[in-house]
Amino acid sequence: MSSTAPGGALRADDSFHVFDTTLRDGAQREGINLTVADKLTIARHLDEFGVGFIEGGWPGANPRDTEFFARAREEIDFRHAKLVAFGATRRAGATAAEDPQVKALLASGAPVITLVAKSHDRHVELALRTTLDENIAMVRDTVAHLREQGRRVFVDCEHFFDGYRANPGYAKSVVRAAHEAGADVVVLCDTNGGMLPAQIQATVATVAADTGARLGIHAQDDTGCAVANTLAAVDAGATHVQCTANGYGERVGNANLFPVVAALELKYGKRVLPEGALREMTRISHAIAEVVNLTPSTHEPYVGVSAFAHKAGLHASAIKVDPDLYQHIDPERVGNRLRMLVSDMAGRASIELKGRELGIEIGHDRELVGRVVERVKERELAGYSYEAADASFELLLRAEAEGRARRYFRTESWRAIVEDRPDGSHANEATVKVWAKGERIVATAEGNGPVNALDRALRVALERLYPQLAKLELVDYKVRILEGVHGTESTTRVLISTGDGTGEWSTVGVADNVIAASWQALEDAYTYGLLRAGVEPTD
Amino acid sequence: MSSTAPGGALRADDSFHVFDTTLRDGAQREGINLTVADKLTIARHLDEFGVGFIEGGWPGANPRDTEFFARAREEIDFRHAKLVAFGATRRAGATAAEDPQVKALLASGAPVITLVAKSHDRHVELALRTTLDENIAMVRDTVAHLREQGRRVFVDCEHFFDGYRANPGYAKSVVRAAHEAGADVVVLCDTNGGMLPAQIQATVATVAADTGARLGIHAQDDTGCAVANTLAAVDAGATHVQCTANGYGERVGNANLFPVVAALELKYGKRVLPEGALREMTRISHAIAEVVNLTPSTHEPYVGVSAFAHKAGLHASAIKVDPDLYQHIDPERVGNRLRMLVSDMAGRASIELKGRELGIEIGHDRELVGRVVERVKERELAGYSYEAADASFELLLRAEAEGRARRYFRTESWRAIVEDRPDGSHANEATVKVWAKGERIVATAEGNGPVNALDRALRVALERLYPQLAKLELVDYKVRILEGVHGTESTTRVLISTGDGTGEWSTVGVADNVIAASWQALEDAYTYGLLRAGVEPTD
Repeated sequence: MSSTAPGGALRADDSFHVFDTTLRDGAQREGINLTVADKLTIARHLDEFGVGFIEGGWPGANPRDTEFFARAREEIDFRHAKLVAFGATRRAGATAAEDPQVKALLASGAPVITLVAKSHDRHVELALRTTLDENIAMVRDTVAHLREQGRRVFVDCEHFFDGYRANPGYAKSVVRAAHEAGADVVVLCDTNGGMLPAQIQATVATVAADTGARLGIHAQDDTGCAVANTLAAVDAGATHVQCTANGYGERVGNANLFPVVAALELKYGKRVLPEGALREMTRISHAIAEVVNLTPSTHEPYVGVSAFAHKAGLHASAIKVDPDLYQHIDPERVGNRLRMLVSDMAGRASIELKGRELGIEIGHDRELVGRVVERVKERELAGYSYEAADASFELLLRAEAEGRARRYFRTESWRAIVEDRPDGSHANEATVKVWAKGERIVATAEGNGPVNALDRALRVALERLYPQLAKLELVDYKVRILEGVHGTESTTRVLISTGDGTGEWSTVGVADNVIAASWQALEDAYTYGLLRAGVEPTD
Repeated sequence: MSSTAPGGALRADDSFHVFDTTLRDGAQREGINLTVADKLTIARHLDEFGVGFIEGGWPGANPRDTEFFARAREEIDFRHAKLVAFGATRRAGATAAEDPQVKALLASGAPVITLVAKSHDRHVELALRTTLDENIAMVRDTVAHLREQGRRVFVDCEHFFDGYRANPGYAKSVVRAAHEAGADVVVLCDTNGGMLPAQIQATVATVAADTGARLGIHAQDDTGCAVANTLAAVDAGATHVQCTANGYGERVGNANLFPVVAALELKYGKRVLPEGALREMTRISHAIAEVVNLTPSTHEPYVGVSAFAHKAGLHASAIKVDPDLYQHIDPERVGNRLRMLVSDMAGRASIELKGRELGIEIGHDRELVGRVVERVKERELAGYSYEAADASFELLLRAEAEGRARRYFRTESWRAIVEDRPDGSHANEATVKVWAKGERIVATAEGNGPVNALDRALRVALERLYPQLAKLELVDYKVRILEGVHGTESTTRVLISTGDGTGEWSTVGVADNVIAASWQALEDAYTYGLLRAGVEPTD
């Protein structure tokens, strides 16, 4: 929603900036390693979500970031966001116009440039190794030069809050220099993330009053308060918030974009995103997690799969009366949904609600509900977990409700062989022996791994009788070793997600080894796929 | 530090309460399922950490919690904490003395009882289905009865902040009733977790002034602000904070005990734990995660393995000058440590620092550092991740520094067979063909899974030549499927942790299937184990 006209003049809707730095600061998170293609995909998601600014990286500092800016200009037609290049002020003792790093920022073609500047006296002396005055000249010159070249400039005052505590006069003089040289926003950064909301609020209020600059906030999450720190700065007058998707970032991470914009829109009643964007939040959060190849955090505020998941029996009974009694917002406002968890703590009310969620009304049959509760307790004790395996739970529920399990085939036995050859190549072969529609079928297949070979062999065996299986595809596969912490043997739990082009479902298997657990989850996955397709059980 | 003398009288150090509810509210987290033995273990960890109160569950509500209180009294000699039983006020229209649920609270023998009370008018009417006056009578009677029985009583006002917004007069009248009937602390709960710090602070300050009650805070994390909300309540005068280890709890979770106490001790300078306890925080956080069978969150403030991990090249250069420039506290104060991450973003300074961390000084050899940087980039592109596999990184670093890889054996080939028999049992058999000390050795072994069978076969093959291997034990095993999101084939990454009784190390393997990736990680694990044991490479 925030944007600039060509040449950097402000438009009317520039009053509040949602500035995303997932591609620059977020990429510093341990475990994230982005290709240029990843960065382009994330930029498209962020633009679709409607952030005002996307900081894409540091052109010139590494070839990947340089390539990103070149390709983003060619390949992406941004609908909401402006692309921002990040870089440093000129080197000490040089001119901004001749500094190769500053030239690379201009060469990126980004209409907006964020300059990182030192504002903590000790950092100027120890890390930058220059004088306090020269540092201020570096800020002033570089901002002025970029403005002359027609770019909009934001200045990130690194370590601002620590610097302000050590030497408030100097910290403020850096803000003033940036502001007077033409920076549109001076961003106060809690780089080490050690601040708490009350400190942030007091400092931002004082700096705003003393300098007259438009202020932004960049908070790291080392105290677990980055979202609150960001909001505290807004309370004190900041009109520019720097965040990252899912809070990705160095060490603990950055202020998480999603709870920050949700608080601004839903709690402050402030419109900071395009109409309807918030309803896409859960989807976009998960899509970005996929691209960076991290499992979406199940317990992330607003967007986690657990964010509106209820387990306590007390809650479940109340939710039957009115869901709003136990949720702070309607989860659909952020594209999420209420879920009832099946667990041995849940009790009868949860099982009833879960049945209803799955379209199976069982509340009238108290004895049946009791049987399902018992069965779930028993299986969870053995290591099963139905919280993340709705399809396996539905099969269990139907088996109890209908008096017998849905069966499309029966396993007699199977075998998987994995072989590492002297030339380093691998052979994976599986044989399955199954019964279906009265026939005994033996099938063998190869795969790129043992589970894949079993999956293919089972298809070979069954596809002639159940052509519906051709559409099934394994979309995710997770393995958890359940430690035998209490003297028991350790067991393996496998969760498999399967899709058929119109939907996805999850199944669980537990066994003494990973292949056997995978087989169980595959059996449930196939059975549920056939159930979904409306095939009548034959066995 | 907080405790009561027998009979419930206050001791001098009762001025601030750290109240843990991991065993009650924390257990509501999706994915947690605690046995009585788990609860006893966690209670011991929490007592060792030094919290003042441990809420153990709801005796009477389920047999497990009843058993927990009985066994905790017998088996645990609490050094710091008082055990707290959680329960509800008496039923409408009954007396407290005759209410079976209230009797069960007394029967638990817990010296302190937390009563949950409704303070939101709508919840009284819709969920509790009684009158506003009767609800107040229920609070007053139950508190008075428990006090007469010699128990200390805290009252949790459920949905207090939502209730206060809807009907402040009624919400406060519940606080007053609890206070006047003898409750030591009235805890204001943000049950739905929708509040922000400014709202919490204003409400707590007003309620404290208007009622004169001693106030506590119980914050849920649905806005991502539970830690800040807890601190905001303390700023407004609350002297009792309810938290859970690692923030476990219903939906998004509860206020996380660890950043709350760290902020109180390190930022507020308030002593709330026994001397030296904070240095145990990282260990205790991870130990509790183990018991509840959840992977410790890598990015948890203060205690996550990433909490003091630096990746940015910019940071690494500065950290060489002075670590305090880039960290808000010395990680040793919370039992954590500074880590440099090896990644293709890291550049030369990080590799140098990482080498130093491993005791290998390579900073003097610029060409070598460059070679290691290149090699890491190349391997990470193929799916390897050295951030969580220090031992594999050290082997890579030594191979480059010493000009050749350390080798104790060479693999010719291997084969693993997993068989599911018609009777449901499984057979796992592996054969390995390896070369060591000039000999070709073929060995076969069975195991409880294919990787275990390979591990045993490799031991059988090598233990005669390397008796040091007998001490090695696989302590953790993780599998990650790296999606082929960019049209590439998907690959599998395995991380293995191995111990030898004196230490643990982690190794990584990447391949097209889980067994082959596991084999690679096993090879590195054995090689590193022999290197640690001081064995000279022979090959």
